[in-house]
Amino acid sequence: MPHLLILNKEVKTYRAILESAHLPDLVIESEPSPACEIIFGEPSSIRTILEKLPNLRWVQSMWAGVEPLIDPSLRRDYVLTNARGVFGGLMAEFIVGYLLTHERKIFQRMEAQKNKVWDKSLTGTLRGKTIGLLGVGSIGTEVAQTANFFGMTVRGYTKASEACPHVDEYFHGNKLIDFTSGLDYLVSILPNTTETRKIVDANVLNALPPHALFINVGRGSAVDESALLNALNQNRIAGAILDVFEQEPLPKHHPFWDTPNLTMTFHTSAPSLPEDLAEVFIENYRLYVEGKPLKYQVDFEKGY
Amino acid sequence: MPHLLILNKEVKTYRAILESAHLPDLVIESEPSPACEIIFGEPSSIRTILEKLPNLRWVQSMWAGVEPLIDPSLRRDYVLTNARGVFGGLMAEFIVGYLLTHERKIFQRMEAQKNKVWDKSLTGTLRGKTIGLLGVGSIGTEVAQTANFFGMTVRGYTKASEACPHVDEYFHGNKLIDFTSGLDYLVSILPNTTETRKIVDANVLNALPPHALFINVGRGSAVDESALLNALNQNRIAGAILDVFEQEPLPKHHPFWDTPNLTMTFHTSAPSLPEDLAEVFIENYRLYVEGKPLKYQVDFEKGY
Repeated sequence: MPHLLILNKEVKTYRAILESAHLPDLVIESEPSPACEIIFGEPSSIRTILEKLPNLRWVQSMWAGVEPLIDPSLRRDYVLTNARGVFGGLMAEFIVGYLLTHERKIFQRMEAQKNKVWDKSLTGTLRGKTIGLLGVGSIGTEVAQTANFFGMTVRGYTKASEACPHVDEYFHGNKLIDFTSGLDYLVSILPNTTETRKIVDANVLNALPPHALFINVGRGSAVDESALLNALNQNRIAGAILDVFEQEPLPKHHPFWDTPNLTMTFHTSAPSLPEDLAEVFIENYRLYVEGKPLKYQVDFEKGY
Repeated sequence: MPHLLILNKEVKTYRAILESAHLPDLVIESEPSPACEIIFGEPSSIRTILEKLPNLRWVQSMWAGVEPLIDPSLRRDYVLTNARGVFGGLMAEFIVGYLLTHERKIFQRMEAQKNKVWDKSLTGTLRGKTIGLLGVGSIGTEVAQTANFFGMTVRGYTKASEACPHVDEYFHGNKLIDFTSGLDYLVSILPNTTETRKIVDANVLNALPPHALFINVGRGSAVDESALLNALNQNRIAGAILDVFEQEPLPKHHPFWDTPNLTMTFHTSAPSLPEDLAEVFIENYRLYVEGKPLKYQVDFEKGY
């Protein structure tokens, strides 16, 4: 009888969904107890009780990013799986939404309406543009497919993987500047690892044409914040849409708040919806009770 | 040797594109002359010289809507073709852009950033929503396909046609209220005809749920403007995005300018790009010289 601990503010919602799924043998605990062998929750909360569960065997993270559990001082004697496959569609919607906000001059036309100006200025289109994805995992794959659907050319920058059929051209290793040169849109979907830290630096930003947009939906650590501030203040790129930051919530004194052409979205690009996340847990639980390998396993060394 | 007259402000651009296509036998005229048998231009300009061309055989409109040429007092002894197949992708981008602006709270988050508020409020998604298309021609077909791609259910309201495979359920005739009931998004792509006039009236708007959005990218005449004003002022629907109006440009005193939750886009949803329109002309010109039936022919009685 596997005992499960759910660690989330919406524990009642999750409990209801899991109970209605009638999972074999599952016992849902309300408090941490030595019997618990599974946790389903948010990495920041899981971290605090990790040492209290002697029988822990599996942690299903409710987030895609699992940094709080990767700290080498913490135990690693359990299987860690993260939330994958649920954020891709939402991320793709977010990216398309903000690209169209730019191309369609949605803010400009809102101002025109306020001023009662009939603003017929020509709009841009996504068709024919080139988008570059830094990181092409499960989220990047859905973003690439959506970009393809709208007639964009897709470049992918990855460590080695070339698995996504919607990427038109792959780049790796020291080809980062080749990857970046001439992009209309640069999108970072990278996790926080030692290799991705400040990968979007002054060199990368300088390789973008002046009409380019930068979008970050991965982790704030992938960006050299002062290089981005310079690029925006000097109009060397057309704009940035940042969903993630080095420090969240962003401190009130941070210059990002009122940097020109910088749009902030407060880590809302892919909301964690209980129905979606419960589905990931249920899928993995069925594998767990059958003794089969779990999906979406995290490599503690790589950090994703 | 067919003589062509181009009627557009960007005549030089169009001439350059057509010349580079090396169309057989084509002579491009700069001024209306009795030799002209083809016009490629905007219906409003064509209307003024229609009676001056005794040898006119074919008019290729640069617009989808051809109202200026449908007036029964005007000659109809020529083949009228309109611009189809070029606006669908642009319209689909427009509709997705504004639906995501709503679901993703893009205006709200822009205000939050101005006020330095970390706005984590949950966003909506297109997935699982139901969209209803009033009119499913070439534009509606592309909109339906895009809606499908984002996981929406698509209803179509047409006179009789059920040709688009991306429409999940069709409605006709007196089933307009059944079609409208429960929609998340209602989109009008209707042309201006006697049958479409004020089809979006108080009954239709009342059939929408309070969270629904209405988008008009067809013609302003399809909407009962005072019924829409009432619906918005009384919060009976969540918002309207209007690209087209009974009178354009909209007069400064019109209440639409500052009606709550009404977004205006000044007839910019599908810009007429010379490369796209020239492609339509070139395709039809090749059929014309071969004596084959032209594509996108307008029925003067129907008006589209």
